[in-house]
This record gives sequence, C-alpha cells and structure tokens, in this order.
Amino acid sequence: MGSTTGDTGTRTAVTVIGLGEMGTALAGAFVEAGHPTTVWNRSREKAAPLVEKGARPAADVREAVAAGPLVVVSVKGNHTAREVLGAAGDALAGRSVVNLTDGTSAEARETAAWVRERGAGYLHGQIMTIAPAVGSPDAVVFYGGDEAVYDRHREELRLVGGRGSRIADDAGLPTLYGMAVHGTMWGVLNGFLHAAALLTDAGVDVTRFLEQAGPSVSAVTSILPSIADEVDRGAYALEFGALQHHLPSVEDLVRESRDRGIDASFPGYTLDLVARAVADGHADDSYSRLVEHFRGR
Amino acid sequence: MGSTTGDTGTRTAVTVIGLGEMGTALAGAFVEAGHPTTVWNRSREKAAPLVEKGARPAADVREAVAAGPLVVVSVKGNHTAREVLGAAGDALAGRSVVNLTDGTSAEARETAAWVRERGAGYLHGQIMTIAPAVGSPDAVVFYGGDEAVYDRHREELRLVGGRGSRIADDAGLPTLYGMAVHGTMWGVLNGFLHAAALLTDAGVDVTRFLEQAGPSVSAVTSILPSIADEVDRGAYALEFGALQHHLPSVEDLVRESRDRGIDASFPGYTLDLVARAVADGHADDSYSRLVEHFRGR
Ligand SMILES: NC(=O)c1ccc[n+]([C@@H]2O[C@H](COP(=O)([O-])OP(=O)(O)OC[C@H]3O[C@@H](n4cnc5c(N)ncnc54)[C@H](OP(=O)(O)O)[C@@H]3O)[C@@H](O)[C@H]2O)c1
Ligand SMILES: NC(=O)c1ccc[n+]([C@@H]2O[C@H](COP(=O)([O-])OP(=O)(O)OC[C@H]3O[C@@H](n4cnc5c(N)ncnc54)[C@H](OP(=O)(O)O)[C@@H]3O)[C@@H](O)[C@H]2O)c1
Repeated sequence: MGSTTGDTGTRTAVTVIGLGEMGTALAGAFVEAGHPTTVWNRSREKAAPLVEKGARPAADVREAVAAGPLVVVSVKGNHTAREVLGAAGDALAGRSVVNLTDGTSAEARETAAWVRERGAGYLHGQIMTIAPAVGSPDAVVFYGGDEAVYDRHREELRLVGGRGSRIADDAGLPTLYGMAVHGTMWGVLNGFLHAAALLTDAGVDVTRFLEQAGPSVSAVTSILPSIADEVDRGAYALEFGALQHHLPSVEDLVRESRDRGIDASFPGYTLDLVARAVADGHADDSYSRLVEHFRGR
Repeated sequence: MGSTTGDTGTRTAVTVIGLGEMGTALAGAFVEAGHPTTVWNRSREKAAPLVEKGARPAADVREAVAAGPLVVVSVKGNHTAREVLGAAGDALAGRSVVNLTDGTSAEARETAAWVRERGAGYLHGQIMTIAPAVGSPDAVVFYGGDEAVYDRHREELRLVGGRGSRIADDAGLPTLYGMAVHGTMWGVLNGFLHAAALLTDAGVDVTRFLEQAGPSVSAVTSILPSIADEVDRGAYALEFGALQHHLPSVEDLVRESRDRGIDASFPGYTLDLVARAVADGHADDSYSRLVEHFRGR
C-alpha cells in the first residue's frame, strides 16, 4: 500500500481516526495535500474511498497510531475518543493528538488529561464549519492545548481550516468559543425566523426585507464590543437605550405577534427577562445587565 | 415670537407634536437646521428649552397644526397620536402628517386611515436609533405611506435620520421592519449574554473572546440571505448543516450550561425546537424550516 504520489516522503505522516462525515473530509484533505495518511474507522468499509485516493488503512488503532507523529481524532463524543485511543496502548506515548471531537469543555479537558497521562501531546480543536468546507482558506478552527503541538503541526492544521488559531493553553476553551459563536447564531436565527413569520404573514418577501433593511440587520452584532466591555467591567449603567427603552418595543413585538396569531414564545421570553429586570430596579441599565440572569444565580 | 435666525423664510415650516425624549430631539434638529419650528406638548414646560433655541410654542394643537404644511408626531402610543391630532379639527386637512410613534402595524395602519379620512397625507416612520442620534448621517428610519409626502419633505426627513428610506405604500410595514431588526437584535443579545455567562464563569474576558473570535461572531448574520431565500421559496431541504447537525451541538450547549449551573433556558428553548423538528421528520431540513414553528400553525 502507501501513497501513490511521489513527493510524500517530505511531508509529515498523518493518522486520522474516525471516518464519519468530518473524519473523511479531514483524511481527504491530508491525502490531497500529499501527506502519507493512515486511516482507521470502527466500520472498516468507510475507509475504502480514501484508500482508493491513496490513504493507508490500518488493521487496528494501535497500528494507526504507530504510523506517524500526528494523530487526528474525529469521532462521536469524547468518551468514544478515549475508548478508541485506549486501544493504542503505549503506542500513544510521544505522539501529538489533535482531537476535533465535539462535546463539553469538561469532556475536552478530561480527554486532554487522559492523553497527557499516556505521554502524548494534546491539542483540542473546535471546527467552526461543515465538513465540505474543511481546508478552505476561510474555515475557522479554535485550538486549545499544547503550544508545541500547534507549532510543530501548523502546516497540517492549515489543511483543517485556513483560519485556525490557538486561543489558549486550556483544552476546554475551544469548545466554549464554539458554543459562544453558535449560541449567538441560534439567537440570531430564532429572532430572524420569528420576524420572517411576521413579515411573510404580512405578504412581505424576507429577501425583499433584507434588500431594504440588510445593513440594519448586519449591524446587530456591532453593539457586542460595548456589551462585552460592560459585562467585563460589571458596569451596566447607561444614559440612553437602557432596559426601560427596550421594554415598550418588546411589548409591541409580543402584542403584534399575539394579535396576528404568530407564536409569541420567543419575544415573550425576552419580554419576561426585560420586564423582570426593570421591576427589579434596573430600568436605567444596559441590556448587558441580563448576563446576571443567564448566570443563573 | 418666531425664529431668531435670518434665513428661515426659505425653509419649510415644521410642527412637532410631542416633546418627550424623541420629540425634543426632533424639534431641536429642525430648529438647528433653520426651519421655522412650532412645538406643542401636553405638559407645556417641556417646550421651554426649545423655545429658547428659537422654536415657537403653540397655544393648542389646532394652532400647532395650522402653523405649516408638515406635522411631525412623536408621542407614546398611536391611540394618543389620534387623540392629540383629533383636537386639531379641520385644521388637519391638506397637511402632511409624519407619525414617528411606535406601536403595532395595525395601529399604524389605523392611524393612517384616520388621518387620511381627515384630508391629510400620511407617512409612518420607524426610527431605528436612540434620541441623541437623531439627524446623524447613519441614523436609519423606515417610512411607509404616501409617496407624495415623502418626496415633498425629503429635506426635512433627512434631519430625522441620514439613512431614511420609504420601503412601502403600506403604513404598517415600517413597524414590522423595525420589529424584525429589533427581534433579531434581541436574539443576538440573549445568545451572546448566555455565552458571556459561560465564558466569564470560565475566567475568560468577553472582550478577549471577541478579539479572538470576533469575525466568527460578526459572520452569524451572513447566513441570513440564504435563510431568507429558503423561507421565501418554502424549500428547506439541505445537504449539509441541516437540523440533524445542529442537534448534537445544541445538546452540548445545554449540557455545558446545566453542568456548570448556568441558566439553560435559552439554549433549552432552541433544543426543544430543533429536537421536535427532527422528531417530526425534518432532520435533513435547514434551520429555516423552523419558521413554520414561529408561524404558530
Ligand atoms: N459533520 C460536520 O459537518 C461537523 C462539523 C463540525 C464538527 N463536527 C464534529 O466532528 C465529529 C464527528 O462528526 P461526524 O459528522 O463525522 O459524525 P458521523 O458522520 O456521525 O460519524 C461519527 C464517527 O464516530 C464513530 N463512532 C461513533 N461511535 C463510536 C464508537 N463507540 N466507537 C468507535 N467509533 C465510533 C463513527 O464510526 P462508525 O462509522 O463505525 O459508526 C464515525 O466514524 C463530531 O464531534 C462532530 O460534532 C462535525
Ligand atoms: N426615546 C428614544 O430613544 C426613542 C427611539 C425610537 C423611537 N422612539 C419612539 O418615540 C415615541 C416617543 O418616545 P419618547 O422616548 O419621546 O417618550 P417619552 O420621553 O416618554 O415622551 C412621551 C411623549 O408622549 C406624550 N404623551 C404621553 N401620553 C400622552 C397623552 N395621553 N396625551 C398627550 N401626550 C401624551 C408625552 O407628553 P407629556 O410630556 O405631557 O407626558 C411626551 O411628549 C415613542 O413611540 C417611542 O417608542 C423613541
């Protein structure tokens, strides 16, 4: 077996463990860039298309891990990542593990500790794109963990996403960063789709709305730096645009929804937060004060 | 009384009804630009600072409305707008009313019909900024209603906001546009502040997060044109990034929140929507499919 291209001898050998949608895209990117690529997946048949392109299938995890210095893992759940890597035994020692498996920050940290106990370096990565965009120049990946692993494998990591960056030593942070971006995105989507229900019910095409109001919609993220600053300083007082100014507008949105038989639960959630904060004496505070609510204490 | 500056004779006389925070800013902008400006407010004392700058206080609403061709209204609630304008009697006929009072789309349309019945032109405006930004070049205002009013008073309307645009004949649409922008904004804020609670609890400054992940956060609005297109076409099927791909990530966010004692109600709301849609057979559909949920039918 082995690669069919001639220049792979100069490139770092890469092992990819887990050939789901994401792992297959990752292994494909390494093969295409000319890295000797060894692959392993629980269901062996998924390796076939990659082997056809030049990847080398390992008989077991131990063989896969032993094939080179860099082990990239992409499976379902970090308990699975540990279970699978466990089969490598002492072959793990001295390797660099780049784990691109999603989960919670605690699970990423547990996996980091588990891998390091076995003598390997560890970097956790949060891929911020879908599988088909792996390796594209604008694909963002957040990394947390060993600086040495990041520095040694910059070239290989660029094949995961063109805009990868190591944000912290803490292997748990990439997960949190990903959640923060996605959580904001789901907020946007829920707010926008509720609005889309109101607009289309009134006969307005949402695309037409975006043509006319697009800059205002895009600008909704432009307040976040000041919101972030208020949260960091714990200083919420505001002269203009405080919660008391939000309140009547949220009330209008809830009323508009109810009047027209559009689901009011999403603006109703916001109304509840804002009204309670105002009732609790925070009328003159910025919306950022609501971080206290989300803290849940 | 009358203006103290010499060149106001060439400028259109403007009447401002309602001198709250917003009305005072509006009247101030007209006075400053040299328009003969007549003001009226229920509590008369609020006119004093404007009169000092050169505005003319009207004894009653009828006198205020009779003072010029353009009547700008900014009060609390559209029922109040009608009640106040009612006192003008037949003085309303032939005027152009620009109503900048917030409410629901139905209330704006009612007010439009009520004003037109009395022989006046009508334009509804949704101001998308806070009072201190009135008149700034980048202040957005959505207008709906009579084209003739909009065309005739472009110069005066530019003093309300530099980025005003007439989006429709329908006087109810500016309100809906404003709600759509604000609703999206509250979604962003809720999602971001929930994330801020997670980040700060892990010792990460939110400002630092934005420095490192800002482009990803700003990009959350970049998917909206395709979401809008899917909603308009009612075509939700998607090969990548469908609801089944969102589901595990939302689950992780809820689990992360619960594990760490952070309020999970906001991601929990999203999880409920996504899980139900997947259970209902929409696993391969885009997030845009959830517009059906918000439609409430
Ligand atoms: N797909 C994307 O667009 C995308 C985007 C960003 C992040 N991610 C993340 O990437 C990771 C992989 O996702 P995916 O989309 O590739 O998932 P997937 O297509 O469902 O594949 C899951 C992978 O995990 C393996 N696996 C599951 N349980 C296992 C077990 N008990 N023992 C051994 N292997 C097991 C599967 O092996 P079998 O083939 O044998 O079942 C398969 O290789 C996840 O953490 C996901 O959140 C994916
Ligand atoms: N402030 C902002 O930054 C902002 C931004 C965008 C849109 N808006 C909209 O602008 C409009 C005015 O808001 P605002 O902030 O100026 O409100 P405000 O400071 O609370 O002033 C309310 C105005 O309405 C008048 N009013 C209330 N009830 C009345 C009644 N029954 N009869 C006669 N007059 C009555 C008040 O007169 P009195 O002085 O006699 O009480 C005052 O002039 C609202 O629709 C608001 O949503 C405001």
